[in-house]
Amino acid sequence: MRVKFHQNLDELKERLLVMAGMAEQAIQRSVEAYRTRDLSICELVFHSETAINKLEREIDQMALDLLAMEQPMAIDLRFILSVIRINADLERVGDQAVNIALRVREMGALANVDLPVDIPRLASLSLAMVRKALQAFIEGNAEMADSVFEMDDQVDAMNDAAYRSLTTFIKERPDLTPQSLNALIIARNLERVGDHATNVAEDVIFWVRGADVRHNVTSN
Amino acid sequence: MRVKFHQNLDELKERLLVMAGMAEQAIQRSVEAYRTRDLSICELVFHSETAINKLEREIDQMALDLLAMEQPMAIDLRFILSVIRINADLERVGDQAVNIALRVREMGALANVDLPVDIPRLASLSLAMVRKALQAFIEGNAEMADSVFEMDDQVDAMNDAAYRSLTTFIKERPDLTPQSLNALIIARNLERVGDHATNVAEDVIFWVRGADVRHNVTSN
Repeated sequence: MRVKFHQNLDELKERLLVMAGMAEQAIQRSVEAYRTRDLSICELVFHSETAINKLEREIDQMALDLLAMEQPMAIDLRFILSVIRINADLERVGDQAVNIALRVREMGALANVDLPVDIPRLASLSLAMVRKALQAFIEGNAEMADSVFEMDDQVDAMNDAAYRSLTTFIKERPDLTPQSLNALIIARNLERVGDHATNVAEDVIFWVRGADVRHNVTSN
Repeated sequence: MRVKFHQNLDELKERLLVMAGMAEQAIQRSVEAYRTRDLSICELVFHSETAINKLEREIDQMALDLLAMEQPMAIDLRFILSVIRINADLERVGDQAVNIALRVREMGALANVDLPVDIPRLASLSLAMVRKALQAFIEGNAEMADSVFEMDDQVDAMNDAAYRSLTTFIKERPDLTPQSLNALIIARNLERVGDHATNVAEDVIFWVRGADVRHNVTSN
């Protein structure tokens, strides 16, 4: 019974990593759509949302079944709860990809101009956070999870800088307000991806150390 | 044992309602700070965040203890998991209040001008959603939870209108870009409060009906 239980836990972990891969890919695609203004990529992002949502429900159901069938020990209980929370965060990363793709679609009707914000770089940092948090989850490594918090400060600082330079830019070029606002919102969407990665890191620490570090290390 | 267990479930519900009251008040205060430009109210919001975060951890711990102690029946298991999810959403409502208060503080240094966005009205609609979702939770009323989704469409429409009118306004008055951007971000923060209310409504339906309605009725 216990062996079977731990096989099920491993399977749950595997499914969650598939979910993570899909969420990461959705963000990458949405940013590729931004970079190239290729609206067909936006359609891919919209399609993948359905698959992500379906997998989210499957994972939640697996976790629920495990909670119902067994009387898990404390660390397994924390693991299952962490999976439920991480699952929700990954689904929201997917939502951010959809939000970005919606903005890119709006920008499709507007002149393609140079804006003072490096969206691909911001995306790359946010996704690095997601990957680091997942690596920490795979290895059950709380120290690695800690390092995600420092990366979050970087992402926040980059986003604040983007906000300031876009504000200045709009004052100089009010005719480019629609483009600038879309870029501003996309930058904030990517910041939220970083916030979700932070949540995942907190869940890993909660699972491994049994301590709840939320709100002690970071705030957003 | 079962009697005690159900007393504990009631206590968990009570605590969650306290959490909800705190989150709602934080939003009300942040919007009052926006309306009056009274920065001392912002400080209240920042203080209350600590209390909200503390209570979030307490509620999660109570829920975990209940899961660990007992082998809950399916509906109780769904209830406890709903509480864990609703708890996270309420904490994020509190985060939105902090985000709004941070924007209001930034606006404190800027001229107070009339902007084409009715923030108090948007706040009032978003908070009505939160209250309706909680009412559904208190009564275990899935039909009432359904009605939250329609309210969310209204909030989204208001927010889209605000985005459009602020874009136009900035083009005409680029000198007021900083104020306009702050108002735009506040409007989006309030839209996210509505999204959290939608999540709560989905959790109520999941608990009561045993069906996972997420992503079928609404998307954001």
